[in-house]
Amino acid sequence: MTHAPHALRITVWNENVHESTQPQIAAIYPTGIHGAIAEGLGQLLPTAQIRTATLADPEHGLDEATLADTDVLLWWGHMAHDQVDDAVVARVHERVLAGMGLIVLHSGHFSKIFRMLMGTTCSLLWRNEAERELVWGVSPSHPIAEGIPSPLIIDHQEMYGEYFDVPEPDGVVFISSFAGGEVFRSGITYRRGLGKVFYFSPGDQEYPVYHQAEVRRVLANAARWAAPGETPQRPPEVGNPARDWFVRDEREGAVE
Amino acid sequence: MTHAPHALRITVWNENVHESTQPQIAAIYPTGIHGAIAEGLGQLLPTAQIRTATLADPEHGLDEATLADTDVLLWWGHMAHDQVDDAVVARVHERVLAGMGLIVLHSGHFSKIFRMLMGTTCSLLWRNEAERELVWGVSPSHPIAEGIPSPLIIDHQEMYGEYFDVPEPDGVVFISSFAGGEVFRSGITYRRGLGKVFYFSPGDQEYPVYHQAEVRRVLANAARWAAPGETPQRPPEVGNPARDWFVRDEREGAVE
Amino acid sequence: MTHAPHALRITVWNENVHESTQPQIAAIYPTGIHGAIAEGLGQLLPTAQIRTATLADPEHGLDEATLADTDVLLWWGHMAHDQVDDAVVARVHERVLAGMGLIVLHSGHFSKIFRMLMGTTCSLLWRNEAERELVWGVSPSHPIAEGIPSPLIIDHQEMYGEYFDVPEPDGVVFISSFAGGEVFRSGITYRRGLGKVFYFSPGDQEYPVYHQAEVRRVLANAARWAAPGETPQRPPEVGNPARDWFVRDEREGAVE
Amino acid sequence: MTHAPHALRITVWNENVHESTQPQIAAIYPTGIHGAIAEGLGQLLPTAQIRTATLADPEHGLDEATLADTDVLLWWGHMAHDQVDDAVVARVHERVLAGMGLIVLHSGHFSKIFRMLMGTTCSLLWRNEAERELVWGVSPSHPIAEGIPSPLIIDHQEMYGEYFDVPEPDGVVFISSFAGGEVFRSGITYRRGLGKVFYFSPGDQEYPVYHQAEVRRVLANAARWAAPGETPQRPPEVGNPARDWFVRDEREGAVE
Repeated sequence: MTHAPHALRITVWNENVHESTQPQIAAIYPTGIHGAIAEGLGQLLPTAQIRTATLADPEHGLDEATLADTDVLLWWGHMAHDQVDDAVVARVHERVLAGMGLIVLHSGHFSKIFRMLMGTTCSLLWRNEAERELVWGVSPSHPIAEGIPSPLIIDHQEMYGEYFDVPEPDGVVFISSFAGGEVFRSGITYRRGLGKVFYFSPGDQEYPVYHQAEVRRVLANAARWAAPGETPQRPPEVGNPARDWFVRDEREGAVE
Repeated sequence: MTHAPHALRITVWNENVHESTQPQIAAIYPTGIHGAIAEGLGQLLPTAQIRTATLADPEHGLDEATLADTDVLLWWGHMAHDQVDDAVVARVHERVLAGMGLIVLHSGHFSKIFRMLMGTTCSLLWRNEAERELVWGVSPSHPIAEGIPSPLIIDHQEMYGEYFDVPEPDGVVFISSFAGGEVFRSGITYRRGLGKVFYFSPGDQEYPVYHQAEVRRVLANAARWAAPGETPQRPPEVGNPARDWFVRDEREGAVE
Repeated sequence: MTHAPHALRITVWNENVHESTQPQIAAIYPTGIHGAIAEGLGQLLPTAQIRTATLADPEHGLDEATLADTDVLLWWGHMAHDQVDDAVVARVHERVLAGMGLIVLHSGHFSKIFRMLMGTTCSLLWRNEAERELVWGVSPSHPIAEGIPSPLIIDHQEMYGEYFDVPEPDGVVFISSFAGGEVFRSGITYRRGLGKVFYFSPGDQEYPVYHQAEVRRVLANAARWAAPGETPQRPPEVGNPARDWFVRDEREGAVE
Repeated sequence: MTHAPHALRITVWNENVHESTQPQIAAIYPTGIHGAIAEGLGQLLPTAQIRTATLADPEHGLDEATLADTDVLLWWGHMAHDQVDDAVVARVHERVLAGMGLIVLHSGHFSKIFRMLMGTTCSLLWRNEAERELVWGVSPSHPIAEGIPSPLIIDHQEMYGEYFDVPEPDGVVFISSFAGGEVFRSGITYRRGLGKVFYFSPGDQEYPVYHQAEVRRVLANAARWAAPGETPQRPPEVGNPARDWFVRDEREGAVE
């Protein structure tokens, strides 16, 4: 009955285009957004095995072996959604359905993998004027909210506003308001196949959001929450069983 | 297959204490909050039969005959929750479980009937400083949201903020933000027994909220949504059927 | 505040392959499964405008003009899911997100459109041995359950069993059991974009399920439930509004 | 960021009336239903601190000190619901809202505490004819389902059937079918206040259900799932904060 006999295995994926091409973004994230996220997870989950992967890596760093060795994948993308290979997206999709946790961040709402899992446009309102975002907890006993102040204050951030065109979430953990008055369901959970999915909206590349301690804790909480109970194997499959397929052989007893 | 062979029968209940004792409130609501709500419903639901009832009426105006003749009950209370007779609350509770719709308004979050249906404290944050409330639609195809602008702007209103201690709603139709930055799940739906329940938070007695056209439409939409498909009869009951109780007599065919 | 100023416009889509190629199926459904479904809807929704469309029609009968004139689309497919043109699927998807209701039937769980909307494998267990299916209502006040006996008894039907790999439904209306002991969430609802989606599992081509009165009423109830409040226009779109975009001009008042 | 710095503290409550008065029940459960449950939890959660309490104990064994030292309470009752003191029920209710997990078993669906938390009749169908119950998993990645076969087969058990009059569950983990054809949502989750609630229907006193290994694992999984992240303190409370109450003092930085 032990959970995770192995250490939690986390892969942080980032397209890493802003940081590679815009010095002002590289100044905020000198090791990339993925580097800042990985650093934060390492602080809070010291026994976890954390790797990073980016768009420029072969197969975007998401080859079969890496995904097979990943319990939870974090995804940050923005400018280069279209450059993500469909075969890689299909592979990630299959792994999520098989049980791998997925944490989609900020502009990742428009990533191929998130839209494929949601089935909707995932559109929203946005305005990038460095507004204050207040992230309120509306499910205070949810594991992802543990230890997070309500509100979590992000001094400067891009506004994301409703209507956010996603399916009805299984759970709403956080709702944000912005200085301009908009609201946004900023922390939402879904189950897809055997995998747990968490979307968390803070984190525009122009602000040091992933350096903020409370945000790091949200991500660490989410990684633990999204981790599968057992090693992901295969997505659910169709079956055509004979009648009474489930009846136990009389020789095995399930009663102690 | 007709819905509601009779006209929609609505009862608007209001404790009517502020209006009776505070001239400045009576100035806003000369016919009472119930009067303003009933007027709005009458405008938008011209075929509905609308009555009002208040705390001072015998049995608070909610005797058996009235409830048996009510499809949807609206509830506004604040100062006098404790003066509502427990027997009346039990009667309303039973009618909701039997299918009567219930729309609970603003400070009614602390009413006996709402707390009994929720099973939680129903506590929240509040601050009465005439802040602007923006009511955002997050379920735009919900019947209660039909024709409502997003945001619906209420110029002056009491702030209600999270954490709002209610069960996970079946649906979240509206989320509000306030000038001070707080957010609130301001339009939420529940099913309890055979009855549909809608809580809508705008409507403090100090502001003319129930005179506002969009708010009136929310309430009219909600009344139609909460109405039972058929006349409420009894709450669900325990049963102890014999095996195969449901098998049709061979002589009756269900296939055309 | 009127709903559906026009008559309810329904399109029944069926691949129509079994009926065209297998005489024993054609004997059960001489006008096709679509014909039987359309007949049932016509009986119960006499003012509705009902058309049918099949795989063999140009653009599968789902051209732009037809979809623009459709409030609710019913979908039956089985053998020929792969023959449905991706462009047509994309068009149906867009219409659902814009508000068109969609009712997916039986083996349609593996249709391209349903899998695209769900984001999961939609796999399940099946066994075709003419078992009795009992369809139990677990949300008795849901509009789709109105007037439906619990259990609804289908004397002979293919077994569909859990685990059914779909997202957590917004609502579970029906749960079935089968003679062999399996259970199945046989009536489930979702919202996708502005569109309402209902999946109903009874209806294998080998049994006269769509001739059964109670099943016809489920479909008629579902068509009314899934209909949009207003004519579908466009899916939700991304927006980039300036601050205070929502503030009303002072000259227009929203207070009556 | 460690969970549960202390061992998991579990209290198993049982009215213990059948076992005390009916020899044939005592033969099945010589240490009481609570004894069998506690034994099973002890096997699977070896580091947990497990105590039992019964109706006959002073304050039913649920005094303030005991509840303050309880992370998760299991509840089995049947004949003696009415003998449970209202003050004790109110105390348990408050602790659940403050974060204590609650697992309600079988006939506990009619207990005062469960009905208070649900707000509905909690009625259902029943028939005690030793039918086979098949417990199917419909949320296979839920922590409570981990390691549980689907179906879990209970050879002899009382039938509980739909319609089960409870609020829409936050999650449905298990759905059962019975030899007679009925279905039942047999494993369902709720959040109430800060507390997690799980209802699990198998476990009539006439059958050795709590000796069955898979059932014991369900309860152990549920105890771990229901445990609060932090020690329960107080239920959510009303607040009346000044504007900007949440703004951090400039001297404390939340950015690392």
